[in-house]
Amino acid sequence: MLEFYKLKEFHIRKLEEHIREGKVDREIIHIIKIINRFDAFFTTSSCAGRIVLIRTPDNLKKQEKAFIFKSHQVVKFDEVWNTVLENYNKYENIWFKQEPFIIHVVCKNLKYANILLKISSKVGLKHSGIISLKKNRVITEIIGNEKIETIVSKNGKLLLTEEYLKELVNEANKKLLRSRVYMGRFYYELLKLFNSYNKLEGQ
Amino acid sequence: MLEFYKLKEFHIRKLEEHIREGKVDREIIHIIKIINRFDAFFTTSSCAGRIVLIRTPDNLKKQEKAFIFKSHQVVKFDEVWNTVLENYNKYENIWFKQEPFIIHVVCKNLKYANILLKISSKVGLKHSGIISLKKNRVITEIIGNEKIETIVSKNGKLLLTEEYLKELVNEANKKLLRSRVYMGRFYYELLKLFNSYNKLEGQ
Repeated sequence: MLEFYKLKEFHIRKLEEHIREGKVDREIIHIIKIINRFDAFFTTSSCAGRIVLIRTPDNLKKQEKAFIFKSHQVVKFDEVWNTVLENYNKYENIWFKQEPFIIHVVCKNLKYANILLKISSKVGLKHSGIISLKKNRVITEIIGNEKIETIVSKNGKLLLTEEYLKELVNEANKKLLRSRVYMGRFYYELLKLFNSYNKLEGQ
Repeated sequence: MLEFYKLKEFHIRKLEEHIREGKVDREIIHIIKIINRFDAFFTTSSCAGRIVLIRTPDNLKKQEKAFIFKSHQVVKFDEVWNTVLENYNKYENIWFKQEPFIIHVVCKNLKYANILLKISSKVGLKHSGIISLKKNRVITEIIGNEKIETIVSKNGKLLLTEEYLKELVNEANKKLLRSRVYMGRFYYELLKLFNSYNKLEGQ
């Protein structure tokens, strides 16, 4: 178990650094913090859900560079449309995506990974699962359901109309907010779990 | 372990029935069959990936009823466009989706679930994971990465142009085929695993 706690210490230090630097989405910090208060868990990465414009092919060295627009809040149509107009003829292809929230949680053992999986399932996060199993570490991916993914421009040619993008932004905002509702439900279940945690630990 | 083998027997019978009735996508049958040849695995559901038009709100009794178009093959633009034209003013909203292939595999124990997870990860199926953990049963979801999800019509009003849908269908076809390439890689790894299976079992 030593390895688990050493790793946890390392990741908590990194997390605190990232929070100070503003690198952690503030809408998800309370969830990350409650997860890390459990002796049996620590988080390695998270995203509160986002709306992005991404250029492809994304065979760039760092995935991050492929984004030409990124927001973890609901967006205004104008800011997306202006970014599209400024960029569509600069890059091969541009895609519009709304992605759900995602959290990677390392669990001390399977028992706790299973508890996390059960509360995910209870609140309707049906695509969550254990993505890696190692001796002293089980990694769980908690992920929302809401998403949009569609093409904006191809070979430097704009494909969609202003009206269509307006509706797309509208739907993406709604889905981003719905993803936050699921985050809230998940947080509530974590709080309940935390309150019964000492009891659990004593089992 | 008796429960596992009884369940496997039940699901294999159901699968054979479904194959006879043409309810299993023929593009995925070879994969389903090789998985079920392993003593340690059986499949409960699968889809070879598809392109669909779906109406929302989908608070219908059976999810299946929400589809107004569904194809597990690449599609012709005309068939999608005609379905859109015939339906957009009949329903509240219509969405266009291209979904990746998906297989649910019940594993005898964690050791085998982990083997499946490792080959999924090796071929790049990064969203695959263990979605349920029970005493005599571990359920793994193997899933492709390629997807498209966007709005077609809203409150009975058509939102996208013919030209845009043409590009969308084109991209969806490409992504469906790419999903099949991943299926092929996964199948190849399963074959290799099957050949070393007796060795594994003897461990």
